[in-house]
Amino acid sequence: MNMHDVTSAPESAGLLSDLIARQQPGWSLAQPFYLSPEIYVIERKGWLADQWYLIGHASELPTPKSVIVRELLGEPILIVRDEDGTLRGFYNVCRHRGSRLCSEDGRVSNLLCPYHAWTYRFDGALRSAPSMPDTMDRSAFHLQRINVAEIGGLVLASLSGSLDAVDKVRAQGEDLLAYHGLPNARIAYRKSYPTHANWKLVMENFFECYHCLPSHPEFSSVMNFVSVIGKVPSAAAAEKWEKEVAEWSEGRANRECPMPDFGSDFNKVADSNTYRLPIGNGHLTASRDGQPVAPLMGGQKAFDGGMSGFRMEPFVNVVAYNDHVRLIHFLPKGPEETDVSITWLVDADAAPDDIDIDRMIWLWDVTTVQDKKIIEENAAGVRSRAYASGPYSPLESLASGFVQTYLDGLRGNL
Amino acid sequence: MNMHDVTSAPESAGLLSDLIARQQPGWSLAQPFYLSPEIYVIERKGWLADQWYLIGHASELPTPKSVIVRELLGEPILIVRDEDGTLRGFYNVCRHRGSRLCSEDGRVSNLLCPYHAWTYRFDGALRSAPSMPDTMDRSAFHLQRINVAEIGGLVLASLSGSLDAVDKVRAQGEDLLAYHGLPNARIAYRKSYPTHANWKLVMENFFECYHCLPSHPEFSSVMNFVSVIGKVPSAAAAEKWEKEVAEWSEGRANRECPMPDFGSDFNKVADSNTYRLPIGNGHLTASRDGQPVAPLMGGQKAFDGGMSGFRMEPFVNVVAYNDHVRLIHFLPKGPEETDVSITWLVDADAAPDDIDIDRMIWLWDVTTVQDKKIIEENAAGVRSRAYASGPYSPLESLASGFVQTYLDGLRGNL
Amino acid sequence: MNMHDVTSAPESAGLLSDLIARQQPGWSLAQPFYLSPEIYVIERKGWLADQWYLIGHASELPTPKSVIVRELLGEPILIVRDEDGTLRGFYNVCRHRGSRLCSEDGRVSNLLCPYHAWTYRFDGALRSAPSMPDTMDRSAFHLQRINVAEIGGLVLASLSGSLDAVDKVRAQGEDLLAYHGLPNARIAYRKSYPTHANWKLVMENFFECYHCLPSHPEFSSVMNFVSVIGKVPSAAAAEKWEKEVAEWSEGRANRECPMPDFGSDFNKVADSNTYRLPIGNGHLTASRDGQPVAPLMGGQKAFDGGMSGFRMEPFVNVVAYNDHVRLIHFLPKGPEETDVSITWLVDADAAPDDIDIDRMIWLWDVTTVQDKKIIEENAAGVRSRAYASGPYSPLESLASGFVQTYLDGLRGNL
Repeated sequence: MNMHDVTSAPESAGLLSDLIARQQPGWSLAQPFYLSPEIYVIERKGWLADQWYLIGHASELPTPKSVIVRELLGEPILIVRDEDGTLRGFYNVCRHRGSRLCSEDGRVSNLLCPYHAWTYRFDGALRSAPSMPDTMDRSAFHLQRINVAEIGGLVLASLSGSLDAVDKVRAQGEDLLAYHGLPNARIAYRKSYPTHANWKLVMENFFECYHCLPSHPEFSSVMNFVSVIGKVPSAAAAEKWEKEVAEWSEGRANRECPMPDFGSDFNKVADSNTYRLPIGNGHLTASRDGQPVAPLMGGQKAFDGGMSGFRMEPFVNVVAYNDHVRLIHFLPKGPEETDVSITWLVDADAAPDDIDIDRMIWLWDVTTVQDKKIIEENAAGVRSRAYASGPYSPLESLASGFVQTYLDGLRGNL
Repeated sequence: MNMHDVTSAPESAGLLSDLIARQQPGWSLAQPFYLSPEIYVIERKGWLADQWYLIGHASELPTPKSVIVRELLGEPILIVRDEDGTLRGFYNVCRHRGSRLCSEDGRVSNLLCPYHAWTYRFDGALRSAPSMPDTMDRSAFHLQRINVAEIGGLVLASLSGSLDAVDKVRAQGEDLLAYHGLPNARIAYRKSYPTHANWKLVMENFFECYHCLPSHPEFSSVMNFVSVIGKVPSAAAAEKWEKEVAEWSEGRANRECPMPDFGSDFNKVADSNTYRLPIGNGHLTASRDGQPVAPLMGGQKAFDGGMSGFRMEPFVNVVAYNDHVRLIHFLPKGPEETDVSITWLVDADAAPDDIDIDRMIWLWDVTTVQDKKIIEENAAGVRSRAYASGPYSPLESLASGFVQTYLDGLRGNL
Repeated sequence: MNMHDVTSAPESAGLLSDLIARQQPGWSLAQPFYLSPEIYVIERKGWLADQWYLIGHASELPTPKSVIVRELLGEPILIVRDEDGTLRGFYNVCRHRGSRLCSEDGRVSNLLCPYHAWTYRFDGALRSAPSMPDTMDRSAFHLQRINVAEIGGLVLASLSGSLDAVDKVRAQGEDLLAYHGLPNARIAYRKSYPTHANWKLVMENFFECYHCLPSHPEFSSVMNFVSVIGKVPSAAAAEKWEKEVAEWSEGRANRECPMPDFGSDFNKVADSNTYRLPIGNGHLTASRDGQPVAPLMGGQKAFDGGMSGFRMEPFVNVVAYNDHVRLIHFLPKGPEETDVSITWLVDADAAPDDIDIDRMIWLWDVTTVQDKKIIEENAAGVRSRAYASGPYSPLESLASGFVQTYLDGLRGNL
């Protein structure tokens, strides 16, 4: 924040336009996109503010008058469950002199500013402002809203994103999430992997599996699909994978799942907000040995070794296995800082003794620790004057597409 | 510090002029005033440099040739007591190659630079510069001065403030400070409360008691005046307070005090650099139970439960109770950092066993810890894009006035 | 790094030109040269990139396929010994998506990027890029080179420095280094002294001994030359020193040394990349008591109490005593951060029991700890608004000359 932030900065916009125009499709971004505080300011006001982020799970706001205190794009926010059960989101900023309003999660009788005791209703309206003149128009001091959405137990938020976009995703995924029992889940574990790198380096990493074989031996050994997307697959490998998917679809796969599998067509997977695949290798769930780590969730009657994906690109990503669900939270925090965290969900009624947390978190924990290191090494190289854009491989087509989508969005903000 | 600091920055001054012009009287400041490094640079060169700050107590420079090493607005300074007892202040910067000259408080034979052994007299004149050519005009290398003043045992300093301003305050307060024994006091305790917030958020907090009831239960319970300035007082509360002050003035109050009390007229208090009030509630001093924490100071013959204030707005604030004195030091340190510390004084001759430090510091320690937290929560909200100026309540009129004085001063610097 | 870094910044260059033009010869630099991030950016792209730095010793790359991972001017670099024994240097940045390539010193079979398994030969050529299209022109993805040189066992590097410059220094010093056994040395000890100050404050300190008497009592007591360069020498002191040098040259001094001593003419010393002097005081080596700390190195047959200097101004500085060698590494790291470290070498074949590390490192360790403190105090004063250029004494002529050379170089970069 400096004085210039209060004005438009046409010279920055001009420089950025040139940078975008010079960007070669299919090549990684030019250096300033990964480092520049000025570009981050522009992103944060526009494209990033329009995206939706996975904040948490509905069980964190269990009852009316529940409140959670979070940060989104560096902004203090709070999400409340109104008296009628609706989620609402606000900037966590009092309209009097700007103090942060709430400081911790919990259930409260109203939203009370600790500084001078202004209080707000759960719909954000100013309820009382002690000792202020009667002439003050209290309706002018409503808390400032952010957009929130609840989809099958997931809590999403966006500073200025469109509710239409979220409704479209909801229509596609709500049944699948319900089938997997997300609305009736609880949090088994949550862990942070703060990553000292620009958020685009984090997302590029997440959007390609070209690095899976060199960098993620555990992930590659559990997830059979790495054999066909981790390298240009041999004809034999491709055929073997297709056969495995076909046999699974016609055999073990749970029939009552509302999501048809896409078989081996990864292009279809890429175009949808939902997908369904077998883990493979005879694994029933995403544990090291493939054996269950918790009771079955939702409407599932048996372990079928499938995994269902739910996404809202680029930041919302959920994978549901038969017995647990993995949420990954990507939250850009600064030009070179990204908060990454993972939440593991289990059935709300699962007995603690039936959950093996160590074995549940193993795969994504070991993989995300590796990714944090890889991404930070990437960032360290990108800071060098020797960094130059390089060509994406065909195996990085999703990362390349993400970059293109980002550039289009950024161009739209100028 | 960057290259642009060496030039004038007309575009910054222009932007700042606009910001000042758009500022609505009676409303808190626009966001950049609380965050912008550029505005802080302008403040530090102008308005802040012209203010006076409470550095410490005369007992820290007990004899001729005493030196204390401090920081003021990020500048290294030293204050010395010259051979004739006069206080003098200098930038703590050698005129040879710029090394810091002194590194610790103490008594020294002269001001010796540890780097190349240039030495200065206590009046700042260069005394010797070994191996420099005889042709060098040594009088051109005087230490650079800052302004210092000693008022009734208080040590004040200013980078470029007017001595006239200090003389006016001295005339008003010196007798009162002498009556309270400040010239013959010693430091009982000092504590720091570094606050991660712009200095104006710190001062606004200090200049209003609208937050006392919600935020400071201890302070509100000890200080009776909170009942009339902490909320719009009921007629009954106002009458009760006026009666208490009147009875105290005509009864218990020490007659020999050179400062007449102002009764219940807080407007008068606001206009003066000194004031006098009863603590109330039968308290003899500012302890939890109202009982003494140290021997009587200065010329006082008995505990009368009064408190005397001495101020030089906005940064110098002293409160003297019968048995101890509280100095508060506000030192802006950066765009979002303010050093706050408190010094507690007692009579120089008080026996250690007669002083109960825990009970003495309790009130201001608990209150300042609370303020640090409140102010930092305020700063956290002010950093949000959702921050907008809000209206001061009538109970925040001093804070509002402070902001207006600041804006006038800043306008004068452009 | 910000967006503006991708463009030329004519306004900065213009301001800098003015600053250079206003600089008074024989006076220390204006404040922005010591503080400005913008000037550091300009230096790092030009003058600093053209200089040579002492990275380490050849024994750190003992065999073909050895690699060391370092940082130079904030750039990640790697130095390898090619299959044929040649040293080569590269930016440690993969040409695919910019990841840092190597993360630790060692012997490797090839240069493998851990991210996506691109591999490079020891000459920097891309060897393989799995799953990339056959149409990709692999020759376009060579690692980016830096310049490296090996002179008598010293490993030097430069981002863009001239190899001619290094060849000239090699011709002057290679025999002397060989005589002192540097090619057959090993590292006995290495220690870091990170210094929170601009690199020019570090170098000015190193280039003058005006501060030796006030600041370095140990150094002054061991090194006899301080008696004539630490202050304007008395005629008696000068005569005594000349006599000592003359007697040493004609007496004890090892005759087979390829470097003639310069006697007492320090101007000659200043003009050369090599020099030779007696330690004096009957010291055989640079220990507190003058007694040996390790076996004789290289071709030396006896302790003669001499010291040989090898330099490539301003950053490469080596002193060889009879039994050990002191390398000092100066690496600018940021506008106000400089990495300083010292490596002590002994004969590669010296038995551990014959080396007394504590006594070996004593002199330069105590001196460099003192210098770190002095320089940081200097930096603290230079940050003050009271800092103004001061006159160099005649005893600081090398520092003054260094500053002039720097300014000339910087002017050339604009």
